[in-house]
Amino acid sequence: MKRSELPALGVGRTPDPPYYAVIFTSQRSEVDDGYHEMAERMEELAQRQAGFLAMDSARGPDGIGITVAYWKDEESIKKWKQHVEHLQAQREGRQRWYRSYQVRIAKVERAYGFDTR
Amino acid sequence: MKRSELPALGVGRTPDPPYYAVIFTSQRSEVDDGYHEMAERMEELAQRQAGFLAMDSARGPDGIGITVAYWKDEESIKKWKQHVEHLQAQREGRQRWYRSYQVRIAKVERAYGFDTR
Repeated sequence: MKRSELPALGVGRTPDPPYYAVIFTSQRSEVDDGYHEMAERMEELAQRQAGFLAMDSARGPDGIGITVAYWKDEESIKKWKQHVEHLQAQREGRQRWYRSYQVRIAKVERAYGFDTR
Repeated sequence: MKRSELPALGVGRTPDPPYYAVIFTSQRSEVDDGYHEMAERMEELAQRQAGFLAMDSARGPDGIGITVAYWKDEESIKKWKQHVEHLQAQREGRQRWYRSYQVRIAKVERAYGFDTR
């Protein structure tokens, strides 16, 4: 069985480094209206962009969330940032859904893992 | 008011890039015994290591968690990985608390943020 045919793990699969990570750390506002639809739509849309590799996301009960999207190169990241529907989501995010966020663009140099299966 | 005196945000503060990120993405097992004590202890211990900058952590109801620790350089990351108490936690993590995990070491090249305060 090839690695790519293994069942999905719930933790994003990526090729061997180097590749890029966009680390999005956010604190939500109290506004829920439209948030979940937007988040779902952005995830779906990101996955269809050229250079997209994988995405992991978690948000705890304290409202702090981390989403890490993995991309082939910086060019793919720049294009996704400028995607017209994504630009609209970024604007609305600042106006309504997030109290604060940080975006960090990082080059993944090494990776290793552990899996009980 | 100096930046360092601003009240804590709930989202880790880091200096201007470049610096390093260790992205730890994990799926928990069903075993809770000792997990929270270990996680708390490791967070406290990491913060006291040379080169530590900040840490953010989130785990959702599906058991998938992301912790990102920011470090000054690769040397600090290597030393922390070899810390005797951390080595023990890594072993126990594989035996008991995690079904799977991925560790990615990445160099943060750019960062920007948004804050409503």
